[in-house]
Amino acid sequence: MLAMPAPRAEILARRAEVISALAERVGPGNVIAEPLRLKAYETDAFTAYRRVPLAVVLPETTAQLAAALRYCNEQGIRVVPRAAGTSLSGGALPLEDAVVIGVARMNRILEVDLADRFARVQAGVTNIAITRAVEGEGFFYAPDPSSQLACMIAGNVAMNSGGAHCLKYGVTANNLLGLTMVTVEGEVMEVGGAHLDCAGYDWLGLITGSEGQLGIVTEVTVRILRAAEGARAMLVGFGATDVAAAAVADIIASGIIPVALEFMDRACIHACEAFAQAGYPLDADALLIIEVEGSEQEQEVLLGKLAAICERHAPTTMRIAKTAEESAAIWKGRKGAFGAIGRISPDYLCMDGTIPPARLPEAMRAIKTLSERYRLEVANVFHAGDGNLHPLIMFDANDADSFARAEALGADILKLCVELGGCLTGEHGVGVEKRDLMTVQFRAVDLDQQRRIKSAFDPGWILNPHKVFPLVSA
Amino acid sequence: MLAMPAPRAEILARRAEVISALAERVGPGNVIAEPLRLKAYETDAFTAYRRVPLAVVLPETTAQLAAALRYCNEQGIRVVPRAAGTSLSGGALPLEDAVVIGVARMNRILEVDLADRFARVQAGVTNIAITRAVEGEGFFYAPDPSSQLACMIAGNVAMNSGGAHCLKYGVTANNLLGLTMVTVEGEVMEVGGAHLDCAGYDWLGLITGSEGQLGIVTEVTVRILRAAEGARAMLVGFGATDVAAAAVADIIASGIIPVALEFMDRACIHACEAFAQAGYPLDADALLIIEVEGSEQEQEVLLGKLAAICERHAPTTMRIAKTAEESAAIWKGRKGAFGAIGRISPDYLCMDGTIPPARLPEAMRAIKTLSERYRLEVANVFHAGDGNLHPLIMFDANDADSFARAEALGADILKLCVELGGCLTGEHGVGVEKRDLMTVQFRAVDLDQQRRIKSAFDPGWILNPHKVFPLVSA
Repeated sequence: MLAMPAPRAEILARRAEVISALAERVGPGNVIAEPLRLKAYETDAFTAYRRVPLAVVLPETTAQLAAALRYCNEQGIRVVPRAAGTSLSGGALPLEDAVVIGVARMNRILEVDLADRFARVQAGVTNIAITRAVEGEGFFYAPDPSSQLACMIAGNVAMNSGGAHCLKYGVTANNLLGLTMVTVEGEVMEVGGAHLDCAGYDWLGLITGSEGQLGIVTEVTVRILRAAEGARAMLVGFGATDVAAAAVADIIASGIIPVALEFMDRACIHACEAFAQAGYPLDADALLIIEVEGSEQEQEVLLGKLAAICERHAPTTMRIAKTAEESAAIWKGRKGAFGAIGRISPDYLCMDGTIPPARLPEAMRAIKTLSERYRLEVANVFHAGDGNLHPLIMFDANDADSFARAEALGADILKLCVELGGCLTGEHGVGVEKRDLMTVQFRAVDLDQQRRIKSAFDPGWILNPHKVFPLVSA
Repeated sequence: MLAMPAPRAEILARRAEVISALAERVGPGNVIAEPLRLKAYETDAFTAYRRVPLAVVLPETTAQLAAALRYCNEQGIRVVPRAAGTSLSGGALPLEDAVVIGVARMNRILEVDLADRFARVQAGVTNIAITRAVEGEGFFYAPDPSSQLACMIAGNVAMNSGGAHCLKYGVTANNLLGLTMVTVEGEVMEVGGAHLDCAGYDWLGLITGSEGQLGIVTEVTVRILRAAEGARAMLVGFGATDVAAAAVADIIASGIIPVALEFMDRACIHACEAFAQAGYPLDADALLIIEVEGSEQEQEVLLGKLAAICERHAPTTMRIAKTAEESAAIWKGRKGAFGAIGRISPDYLCMDGTIPPARLPEAMRAIKTLSERYRLEVANVFHAGDGNLHPLIMFDANDADSFARAEALGADILKLCVELGGCLTGEHGVGVEKRDLMTVQFRAVDLDQQRRIKSAFDPGWILNPHKVFPLVSA
């Protein structure tokens, strides 16, 4: 279990005064203070930890948000920024003595410019809403986290979210042009814009992935791309994980960049097939789903090249979609993977480490050994093309020992990723979940330098406290 | 003329002691102290300003470099980091009381991993050397600044360099995986690595483009890409700049991403043709060079689509290369553009603003008006696909009034870029050149926040002083 700070009694005692001061700044209708309504904000999608916040503020404008944040900073009240609350690492977990400032009511699309290919939106716009706003004209916003129907662009920026298609299109950082951020002092900063690069430090890069530690983002300008004419998937089964991993390495080495390259192990194949009846081969030890896009002609050429590469590795099954419907059928099992695991295990932890892609076979073997040592099943489903693993550790939350073993197994898997030359997190962020593992990745001197950056933006350390940085004795 | 600080007499007085202390740390053979040899370091490619440094240190290892930097920081001696000295914005301009720490002797390729597609190199390796090390296997390093034969990867990182092909492949920031940086305290930090993303703040993004203000980079891990099967260029002339700009907008809107999309105006066409005899059309007011790559079949399809788009804008000339030799002939004039301008004007300033691509016609008209107002010829050659302008202002450096007008015209062009929604610099950096224009782009609150970041890394402000940040009264 992760250590959580005790709430500060002097802040709890001032609750009524704080709520009324916030209401003055954002309007009473934008402050939530009733215990029952506050309970809706006690956790995010990392449900292992829960804390009901002091109050929730949902400003409608950047000015309101700035006023609320300035007030909290002046009063020394901690602030937990929140978008849709779909974080898988507890990035939006509240504290009892903290005010949640949410961007959900700032959900307008402000500007779409097809000629210069950007969209400027408020922070609470959902990921999918951006694509919806431009798809009629044949454009789309590329990063596509699994939660894209619900998750909001400010959360995507905070966590530098990825998705199944980021092998080709990059993660959030690669698709941002600018943003508006409110600092703890209530200053409104414009960062980047609808143009190439920018003078000065790369704020955009620094703020993207900073997990709400440096300020609160209220507007985002994203790049929109012309959608491909079409896409088609293929499904390839292999008799052994090593063989599938070797095929992945060959595909990447060939220079072909599929739009998606997903990997499922035997446990995951069986769970998904039982759930979705997608026709997955139950005799395979590993399954690849590979998607390409372009004109009909381009798809045909690329699928042919991929099939030839896979053939060299003696696949046990190979199915190439001929139509959009057949592609959808191939994806059906993969898209329901988390739901499928949820059906066979009361609870699961979803890990998010990355490794250099060539170390895949080694990683799979080591995860299997760890899984046996901790007596917990692990199903593997992940973005193989860029080495982003998502081991799903199955456990029972009602059994304290099972939960403790799941946390320990998860920590060991992430340590393994770092040992193999990878990283603690690919797209879910550090949040609370991986906070105390940061010392595995970083030396004291690295973390100290990161703390100096944090202090340069947030001298009082009021923003999203007790996350990202391992707790120090102080 | 830009204000330059007076050297600090107390540092100059300690010169002998400083040189001997540095020699102890990096070995006497790696310290340059003789006035004649120091003169080679008095400027970079932005030759309008020159200062002979106190001493030059050329360490051979990260440990030597760390020892030298730690000593300077402890003694309050300013340090100017230097790679190849090809900066066009004065990023490596010394000061008389500063020590230049150069990475030119750290020029080994440390590791090439084709399976995971990365190369780890020392900071003083030239840009072209990375491609040379992997091209035998069919790979390349994508960013290709014009100076790529000479410029070093540490300078590319410092300036976030681009190149003609960054329309498709992105700038330096998009092609880095990790780096080793020495802090002013002499600590060696590892940032990122050969894997996707990373936990913690995005150091890599922050350091890339920070112009040697935060530390000195000693090793860099870059992504290498599989080279396309081939590439072919086409050359299209238009009767008016607006028409060419409209064709550029149509190409971008079509979703085709050429590997290069270069624009030359009438002044530049004539200068290049006189210099290189590339067969450029002298009746055209604007010329586009468009390059595509892929298999023979893909090239054919893309060139056909591009020709159809250009045809809609009534080109005065259209020439599509059928072979690699014909492509080289088309590029010949463009690649010699800076040399060609140098032949017709004693001196020129190369500007580097960016604009949203759709504002191109407006920008071209306004630059023409400004050119007439300041009575100086401007030739335009630039990366049109991503809106990165390179107006070349022709002047006579022996005529103080001509130089003053050139600087003022340059400043007005960059202000224009910002007004149009663009930025002061696309790929050359701020350096000394655009230091005092930073207030055009940024408000005081933005610059203050940038200064806080600088202070978090370099509390004594010893690194690359009097650059990037506008001088304050203090």
